[in-house]
Amino acid sequence: MMYSTIPTPNSSRLSNNSAVEGQASQYLFTRREVIPLRNDVLWRIEHGAVRTLTWGEDGTFITLGYWGLGDLIGYPLSRIRPYQIECLTAVEVSIVPAHLWHQDVDALLSHIQQTEDLLSIVHRKPISLRLWQFLLWLSEKFGRDIDKGKLIDLNITHQDIAEVLNTTRVTVTRLLQQFEEEEAILRHKRRIILRLLK
Amino acid sequence: MMYSTIPTPNSSRLSNNSAVEGQASQYLFTRREVIPLRNDVLWRIEHGAVRTLTWGEDGTFITLGYWGLGDLIGYPLSRIRPYQIECLTAVEVSIVPAHLWHQDVDALLSHIQQTEDLLSIVHRKPISLRLWQFLLWLSEKFGRDIDKGKLIDLNITHQDIAEVLNTTRVTVTRLLQQFEEEEAILRHKRRIILRLLK
Repeated sequence: MMYSTIPTPNSSRLSNNSAVEGQASQYLFTRREVIPLRNDVLWRIEHGAVRTLTWGEDGTFITLGYWGLGDLIGYPLSRIRPYQIECLTAVEVSIVPAHLWHQDVDALLSHIQQTEDLLSIVHRKPISLRLWQFLLWLSEKFGRDIDKGKLIDLNITHQDIAEVLNTTRVTVTRLLQQFEEEEAILRHKRRIILRLLK
Repeated sequence: MMYSTIPTPNSSRLSNNSAVEGQASQYLFTRREVIPLRNDVLWRIEHGAVRTLTWGEDGTFITLGYWGLGDLIGYPLSRIRPYQIECLTAVEVSIVPAHLWHQDVDALLSHIQQTEDLLSIVHRKPISLRLWQFLLWLSEKFGRDIDKGKLIDLNITHQDIAEVLNTTRVTVTRLLQQFEEEEAILRHKRRIILRLLK
């Protein structure tokens, strides 16, 4: 697990009481748990990674974002229904009530930039370029430098990737194999290491 | 022209002097003109419509947004390079300097929502559904109620639409013909009327 070192929480900060002015309540979730949707608050991610998603009438999932440390997420940022925030790892979030949003313009700008990044990536052709740009984007956002390259350790499946890139699981599997043969990536279970030049 | 009735501007408000505190400088642009990119300001659209775009190494344009009245646009909202803001109609914008951004949280939330809308639309399959959802989105944002339906009068080309939807001009042309045969839309030159049930 990537987040095996979550510090022992201060129980008062983790209470489910409503936020006291100037002191955020914090909440913990486990992998694949869904963060409750509330119209009146944004959540700030203090630890871990989540994805935002919707689905079509045919049941196909569409991933709208991957979010991590410092990102703001929540219902007020989206008009899309259905809409869901799903934890990719163990996650810790704090509440940001509406009257404090104006203090976090940088996080809102960052949210705009990241959504636009993904919109740009989804347009890329061929799909191999799209996948490679997404892996680069993930590695910049969530990656960790190790001796062999940049490690992406999000427990992400090929199906998860397909739902970001508007392609199929089979295509993602084939292209990751190709990247591995070309020694552009290394893989160990669901970990991916990008062999980037330093 | 959609915007044939732009009021005669107050010349002092249209000066190119830097903005006086609390009084925005305003600028006029013509169709297909590019709004200058500045790292330090956002622009608020007071009149007209623009698109934001980038392009790939193969020269393919990728449209990242369609923006209109009240929307904030500008370089600080994007990390994507190259990046351009192109006027789709005659456009009037005012400057919003950085120290005033926090006063416009609603416009930033709206920007996030709209970019996410387009990201969701680009994922839809088949392409006919994608195009129909985009026309609905355009009609909600820019449309005008007329007796025959909802008029989209943005002087938008089939190529423009293809660059939003990650498809080809030929496909857009074929599908618009099909929508017309099915009486879902009416067309007059570049105007599109959606025959929505009232």
